[in-house]
Amino acid sequence: MAPPANPRRGRFITFEGGEGAGKSTQIQRLAATLVAAGIPVLVTREPGGSPGAEEIRALLVTGEPGRWQKISETLLHFAARAEHLAHKVLPALDAGTWVLCDRFADSTMAYQGYGHQLGRAPVLALNRLVLRRLKPDLTLILDLPVKAGLARAAGRGGADRYERMGKEFHERVRRGFRDIARREARRCRLLSADGPVDAVAARVRQAVAERFRLVLR
Amino acid sequence: MAPPANPRRGRFITFEGGEGAGKSTQIQRLAATLVAAGIPVLVTREPGGSPGAEEIRALLVTGEPGRWQKISETLLHFAARAEHLAHKVLPALDAGTWVLCDRFADSTMAYQGYGHQLGRAPVLALNRLVLRRLKPDLTLILDLPVKAGLARAAGRGGADRYERMGKEFHERVRRGFRDIARREARRCRLLSADGPVDAVAARVRQAVAERFRLVLR
Repeated sequence: MAPPANPRRGRFITFEGGEGAGKSTQIQRLAATLVAAGIPVLVTREPGGSPGAEEIRALLVTGEPGRWQKISETLLHFAARAEHLAHKVLPALDAGTWVLCDRFADSTMAYQGYGHQLGRAPVLALNRLVLRRLKPDLTLILDLPVKAGLARAAGRGGADRYERMGKEFHERVRRGFRDIARREARRCRLLSADGPVDAVAARVRQAVAERFRLVLR
Repeated sequence: MAPPANPRRGRFITFEGGEGAGKSTQIQRLAATLVAAGIPVLVTREPGGSPGAEEIRALLVTGEPGRWQKISETLLHFAARAEHLAHKVLPALDAGTWVLCDRFADSTMAYQGYGHQLGRAPVLALNRLVLRRLKPDLTLILDLPVKAGLARAAGRGGADRYERMGKEFHERVRRGFRDIARREARRCRLLSADGPVDAVAARVRQAVAERFRLVLR
């Protein structure tokens, strides 16, 4: 994120990772920790998070795995993102609220750029167009072997369109996230999502405490 | 369009212009003329024209005039366009069918770039990303004063989201189309949409006959 003009501006933390990595559980845990420390928190998710974005989400998560062209799918994700930013994320940050977001632009890079093999360049072009200079203050990438992640996701039941895309696809997505973590090491922290929920929550808490110089318990 | 690898490839003709310019009537007239000359024709429209694109169209043409961010609206148009190209336009052209399309990329430039004042650069960036080197072989821009066009469109009843956007918006759209016609004079023909349907149809027929060296009656 560009240097905050507003010193009270909230922090923007994104959670990334493959299916079944435990992002939503970990976001809830971190939200509780931050609230207990007196920090106002908005928890949200992509695709979706505002009325127009949720309508676009419905097009993305339902239907056959091959229903969209790679480029159309990518454009739909960015359209939903522009709505979500304008209506939810930016107003909250401006009001001093910290925003914890379940998936953001790195998911589009990992899923469409790497998973669907659209390549990095189109996603970077759309990042420039839609995000301009906005970047998360911290991105936590929860990393888990694909087999374990898909098994966890299957345990939830009702596989969505992405979960049905096949193991090879999800291997490329995982490599994509790991590559992003390497390329943007200042913004991203790659955390193992293996092990009990409490152990992963402790890793998340430590990463957040370090990045923002907080004492969290 | 890039030099056709396929010599039997059909021609891609787009119709552009503001509300009430008479595009759909004129497309039907030209289609009948071409069919009578033994040319196979597909008539289609944007946004829409294929199943996924029609779902996106529903998001674009309904609801409040201000429901989308400018950039989201532009991305949705290009997502619908990518679907329409892949599923309808390109297969038809490859099969030797001529495609007559009611609105195409110039409408996004005129409505979003000029009308909503998003500017030319984002639309050009998306043209490169989605169309690559594809261009219509001929674009007919039907030009009509805004007042006359909106009166004609109102006569149809049931104003859609774009028709409700106000006179200033539509004046910018008209200037946009005229600007595109000047900038891309080889591809575009600006035709007056004023006067009786038969007179406009004769102008369209003449432009097509000249461009493709056909005798049409």
